[in-house]
Amino acid sequence: MNPTAGSNGPPQRRPDGSLRHLLTLESLSRTELEQLLERAQGFVRPVGERPARSAALAGYTVANLFTEPSTRTRVSFELAAKRLGAQVVNLELQLSSRLKGESMLDTVYTLQAMQVDAFVIRDAEAGVPQAVAANVAPHVSVLSAGEAHVSHPTQGLLDALTIRQRKGRFEGLSMAIIGDIRHSRVARSAWHALRTLGVRDLRIAGPAALMPDATEFAGCSRHTDLTSALAGTDVVMMLRIQKERMGEADLPDAAQYFAAWGLTRERLAAARTGAIVMHPQPMNRGIEIESEVADGPQSVIRDQVRNGVAVRMAVLETVLTPRGAAA
Amino acid sequence: MNPTAGSNGPPQRRPDGSLRHLLTLESLSRTELEQLLERAQGFVRPVGERPARSAALAGYTVANLFTEPSTRTRVSFELAAKRLGAQVVNLELQLSSRLKGESMLDTVYTLQAMQVDAFVIRDAEAGVPQAVAANVAPHVSVLSAGEAHVSHPTQGLLDALTIRQRKGRFEGLSMAIIGDIRHSRVARSAWHALRTLGVRDLRIAGPAALMPDATEFAGCSRHTDLTSALAGTDVVMMLRIQKERMGEADLPDAAQYFAAWGLTRERLAAARTGAIVMHPQPMNRGIEIESEVADGPQSVIRDQVRNGVAVRMAVLETVLTPRGAAA
Amino acid sequence: MNPTAGSNGPPQRRPDGSLRHLLTLESLSRTELEQLLERAQGFVRPVGERPARSAALAGYTVANLFTEPSTRTRVSFELAAKRLGAQVVNLELQLSSRLKGESMLDTVYTLQAMQVDAFVIRDAEAGVPQAVAANVAPHVSVLSAGEAHVSHPTQGLLDALTIRQRKGRFEGLSMAIIGDIRHSRVARSAWHALRTLGVRDLRIAGPAALMPDATEFAGCSRHTDLTSALAGTDVVMMLRIQKERMGEADLPDAAQYFAAWGLTRERLAAARTGAIVMHPQPMNRGIEIESEVADGPQSVIRDQVRNGVAVRMAVLETVLTPRGAAA
Repeated sequence: MNPTAGSNGPPQRRPDGSLRHLLTLESLSRTELEQLLERAQGFVRPVGERPARSAALAGYTVANLFTEPSTRTRVSFELAAKRLGAQVVNLELQLSSRLKGESMLDTVYTLQAMQVDAFVIRDAEAGVPQAVAANVAPHVSVLSAGEAHVSHPTQGLLDALTIRQRKGRFEGLSMAIIGDIRHSRVARSAWHALRTLGVRDLRIAGPAALMPDATEFAGCSRHTDLTSALAGTDVVMMLRIQKERMGEADLPDAAQYFAAWGLTRERLAAARTGAIVMHPQPMNRGIEIESEVADGPQSVIRDQVRNGVAVRMAVLETVLTPRGAAA
Repeated sequence: MNPTAGSNGPPQRRPDGSLRHLLTLESLSRTELEQLLERAQGFVRPVGERPARSAALAGYTVANLFTEPSTRTRVSFELAAKRLGAQVVNLELQLSSRLKGESMLDTVYTLQAMQVDAFVIRDAEAGVPQAVAANVAPHVSVLSAGEAHVSHPTQGLLDALTIRQRKGRFEGLSMAIIGDIRHSRVARSAWHALRTLGVRDLRIAGPAALMPDATEFAGCSRHTDLTSALAGTDVVMMLRIQKERMGEADLPDAAQYFAAWGLTRERLAAARTGAIVMHPQPMNRGIEIESEVADGPQSVIRDQVRNGVAVRMAVLETVLTPRGAAA
Repeated sequence: MNPTAGSNGPPQRRPDGSLRHLLTLESLSRTELEQLLERAQGFVRPVGERPARSAALAGYTVANLFTEPSTRTRVSFELAAKRLGAQVVNLELQLSSRLKGESMLDTVYTLQAMQVDAFVIRDAEAGVPQAVAANVAPHVSVLSAGEAHVSHPTQGLLDALTIRQRKGRFEGLSMAIIGDIRHSRVARSAWHALRTLGVRDLRIAGPAALMPDATEFAGCSRHTDLTSALAGTDVVMMLRIQKERMGEADLPDAAQYFAAWGLTRERLAAARTGAIVMHPQPMNRGIEIESEVADGPQSVIRDQVRNGVAVRMAVLETVLTPRGAAA
């Protein structure tokens, strides 16, 4: 139960090894990840019932600082914090790029002086959540809600939780991540979480120009076509493709991208019977995934969203009430 | 007490006939309308006292999804939900028109997976609240906060409540709705509510180009000048005129519109002594109504606003806690 | 304890002399200011502890009406209201200038009818908070959150509270306000508060074009260079300079402004040992103040922010629960 992976001091832990920030899943131990998933599972309720609620964070204040718009992620964090009894303030910052770091830090210092306890930060540039985490007071926590192409740790956790719910285990699973791997923080955080949790057969696939450098995604196998990537998998994660990336991939329009990399019911048959289909949303229906699959019986996309709130509740409670986390 | 009008299944009712959505007032029975008004009246407090509050919706989550800006209506729904103890998230969506329906539905599915219980939807296009209502899970409710020119059901209810408070009855009342009837969801919802509640002498009047098709507003008399429309009425409802509509009506500027259709103290004298003046706001003072009337002793415009919160509390409680509603 | 300064009726008091609005600090007596500071001090908690909270305003509704963006001030008022148990609605209004006063008043009337108890108003034009205060119902309060160049009363209070905490007194202090005094509501409110509280040696300094008219800032000495302004002071307040004002001051770029008026560690040595440095934020680091000073041991800038929430809690509680205030 002692998260030893944390004891030699990555910046997201306190001196006692407890989790203080959540900026990346890279350094989290399997035990830590499992504890977070277990705690998150405790917050999951069937759709149609009242959501889990507590007063664990009564008197706490959480600030959502988003410099790129992401209504869904903001609302997910907002509901997670409110359902734990915290007060939430939302700030959409439009910072000029030249002074961004400085302005972000001055904003953070200001909010910290107003006794904000946790910052949820989303930014299109790499390094911003780390810079904030390195500068806040010792009692303050920073959660990344998506950092450039680098990391989206709560997404990685909700993906892992979804797989755990549906498959009951990580060992022995085969999983494929399909699409624009190169620019995807979702793929990176899934990779961090799932290799640590014991997924051995982890595959990445996409157009050559959208594959990551060879030094990245250690331990993953690389596939150059969709069918081989899907063959025999238990879990299929489709990624959103940006229009401008299609051109880079020499698949300049939606139809061509779909023809090469779009997930259809027919192609999904290459996966194992009962394989689940994931997508971080928002989806481009008819481009990386057809609606029949997105809304079909193998899709767990709505589970992912539900689990997102539960995971964010677990993370907020863990970092803000560390004694509870250590217990 | 059995709302039989609902038993043959318009989509805004549950199989047991209880109100699940509020998309239009068209199919509501007189009993149902009266129950909603009675419940709303219970939430009315004199200005200067604390507003009515309860914990009836503690643990519930209400999402305001507005694709056209309407701060006042959004705040009215927000306060209604908060004063019943619900948590509220506000989303202002800017959806590209081509993908609007799909994006709206994906957003709704996402929020539903986050255990949002009710969606309050405002949209400039017809059919959006219905489309959402047709697709949400069985435990989820949809309230229209204004749908194109078609319907604005909580506005119709607040108008009815205001008349009930001031006149004590609906039978025997004469009422005129004046202005751009053609494009007015406010006029349509008032007509739906008030004819069902028993107003017999319901008149509509406005420039010919802004009058509705002959097939619409059944049972209303049509007037071509302001004075005849007002003669002997108990209730006068003025509508907001959009600048671009003045041109369509061959009254190309504010002064000409005011000369023909603006409500002045002198013209109001044609109505019955003690007639009340209503307006859905925002007002164009000096165009469809002069300030002396808007702020005068016969104006009930601020009552309408106060009643708006009460009506929205009644509707939220009714649709989200249906056993209470059936009791 | 009888605030006699209020008995002859400036519009921000009730007939019994209690504070109803806070639009300016000009007419507040020393006793009133000290009572507000004392109450605010009771809401101050060390950073890292839970913030002060109460249910004093449970059932109350506070509306933030901002026509110019100011995220920090909005969040400060929002947290102050929420920590007293009030419900808060945020409105960012974009009002066309021609109809601004009218639109603002119609919005206020609407919100008042929704049982909003207090309006927090920020506007770039002079007179707007007063106009609102003159028109709201007797039970409603108006707080200025910054009015053109005229007044920023809660800023004046938080500045006074910060000085009181650090210096323990006002008599005998020397204080300098440096920069664009002419356009500064911060300087004016500081001047109002501090002369009333007993600061005798109050100095203003800045480029000649940015100094106020001779009829303003009665009782302040005027300095034409930074060093003489700072000499022997206990408190230094630096003001933000707008880029366009530098040109007016014949200091057309940041480097020139900094050379003439920027506060550096060397220059600060002219002040008394232990002098405190204040800034209302947001700061232009390297223009009116260097980072070494802004983040240095003499800076109390973060205290100012923390005190801002406490002061706003004190003011909200005072104006909305007047019996408490009179007790």
